[in-house]
Amino acid sequence: MAPVPPPPTIGVFDSGFGGLTVLRALLPLQTYANYIYLGDTARLPYGSKSQETIARYAVSSAKFLHDQGAELLVIACNTATALALEDIQQSLSIPVIGVVEPGAQAASQAHKKDCHPERNETESKDLRFASTQKTLVLATPATVQSGAYTRALNALNLEAFEKACPLLVPLVEEGWIDHPVTDEVLRIYLTEALNQAPDATTLLLGCTHYPLIEPAIHRILADLNHPLAIIDSAQATAEAVVRNLALNHSGDHALATCVVNYAILQAKNSKPDAQNCTFYATDSIEKFQRLGSAFLGLPVTGVRHVDLGG
Amino acid sequence: MAPVPPPPTIGVFDSGFGGLTVLRALLPLQTYANYIYLGDTARLPYGSKSQETIARYAVSSAKFLHDQGAELLVIACNTATALALEDIQQSLSIPVIGVVEPGAQAASQAHKKDCHPERNETESKDLRFASTQKTLVLATPATVQSGAYTRALNALNLEAFEKACPLLVPLVEEGWIDHPVTDEVLRIYLTEALNQAPDATTLLLGCTHYPLIEPAIHRILADLNHPLAIIDSAQATAEAVVRNLALNHSGDHALATCVVNYAILQAKNSKPDAQNCTFYATDSIEKFQRLGSAFLGLPVTGVRHVDLGG
Repeated sequence: MAPVPPPPTIGVFDSGFGGLTVLRALLPLQTYANYIYLGDTARLPYGSKSQETIARYAVSSAKFLHDQGAELLVIACNTATALALEDIQQSLSIPVIGVVEPGAQAASQAHKKDCHPERNETESKDLRFASTQKTLVLATPATVQSGAYTRALNALNLEAFEKACPLLVPLVEEGWIDHPVTDEVLRIYLTEALNQAPDATTLLLGCTHYPLIEPAIHRILADLNHPLAIIDSAQATAEAVVRNLALNHSGDHALATCVVNYAILQAKNSKPDAQNCTFYATDSIEKFQRLGSAFLGLPVTGVRHVDLGG
Repeated sequence: MAPVPPPPTIGVFDSGFGGLTVLRALLPLQTYANYIYLGDTARLPYGSKSQETIARYAVSSAKFLHDQGAELLVIACNTATALALEDIQQSLSIPVIGVVEPGAQAASQAHKKDCHPERNETESKDLRFASTQKTLVLATPATVQSGAYTRALNALNLEAFEKACPLLVPLVEEGWIDHPVTDEVLRIYLTEALNQAPDATTLLLGCTHYPLIEPAIHRILADLNHPLAIIDSAQATAEAVVRNLALNHSGDHALATCVVNYAILQAKNSKPDAQNCTFYATDSIEKFQRLGSAFLGLPVTGVRHVDLGG
């Protein structure tokens, strides 16, 4: 019998805490792995900065995780994926997976599901007959400006409308998850977006902070009488990681799909902890532990500080 | 007749655009000067980061301005002043003026004014007989955590209550200056603050972004039936710069006071432009020109990019 290979070391990177929602999806799906998470909190937020600055920060962060032994890297940050994925891929020799492509794939799957009348018959009745397949993407100003989601969705024959929502990250970080001000800001952003894209049939959360306010987004869409299927790229990205590892191991696409489906089933009964995770932050350890636990949904402890310059 | 000395070169530093409200106050007050402004926009905001990170960023920014020829440095950023003024002063051989001390001095002057019944007789009737002299300070989380305003106000025999307002900078940068959401956020922050410090008699704007929403703060305080004298440290800091230059030149405190008073009078008829200003930004030049013009109240052009590492 072949010896069991050692667990893979997976690096997960974000400018801050949002990427922990991707790690949260990964932990139950790929339990046999060691994780190294880096939050570049000293230089966050990336979302309001220029392409050059974001690429410089993201490449130095990615190199750090590679130096720490990562064999596969997840860019669990929409802004860094949208503006620096190629730069990172060119500067490293390991597989690098971003969140944009899996998010777009998940939107495409959702649209296909809407086209099958046997599924969600009552819910998707109106959506099935929509004349176009348009996805509304909520994201940071830098992600929207990059046009990365529009390119990824267009490549899958979907139309896209991207809406910059600069206040949502500060509101989540203020902890106003279930709060009338957040509801009002969402009402303004969503009304503006739906006025410009009234034919959107799905809504893609293009920022890893947004899953924390998904219930509020649901509520406001219902208030606006415009329910949309909400897609969170964290789960799609986690599945892409499992597929990549399986494919690297076997080279067989059918087997990789099988492994992913098995992992999704297994995950339902999994109660993950963060024992196999090492956390690094470029700013305050205390703040990372406090805010990070909310994003991961598990206690974040033993965070190490790292200085990446700047 | 002694030759006219060359105009002094004054460096003005902020993490972003807010410090331009200090430059805006300086330009008409000290017309005979060259100004170099640095916005460390690639690493903003400082307000939510740790002391170590802020000090590292602020010192490297201050050194850049010194290298560019600054003979006097204004730390036009409350967070950097509160957390890194001493570090900057120790690393440079030129005078360094922050915003906290002048702001506290201005609060003290306002309290003294309230004790003279002949001034503002009707407006300050209630305030005059307040049992304590307490100043409410609105600031970023990092500034509040440093306790710098409390120390500076206590040294002037004033009590202080500091309130962290993390959403105000993002709201100003979103351009929601006169907006119902900003009013609602202010109502929440001010209600919380006044519940804890009902005896406050003045309100100090402890962040250089806040002067842009001063009218909204006035309005909400009136709605809450709790009018307070609002103090903006930009003007006080500009006066401290003029005093420092005059004192360096003459060594005579009485003469320096005279120069400041004369400058204040002259400034009333001054129509400054930004001809004698050089602007540097560590992130996007285009964004600095666009947002900067709103903060300075004058067109900001010819911005140069500088990479301070990180």
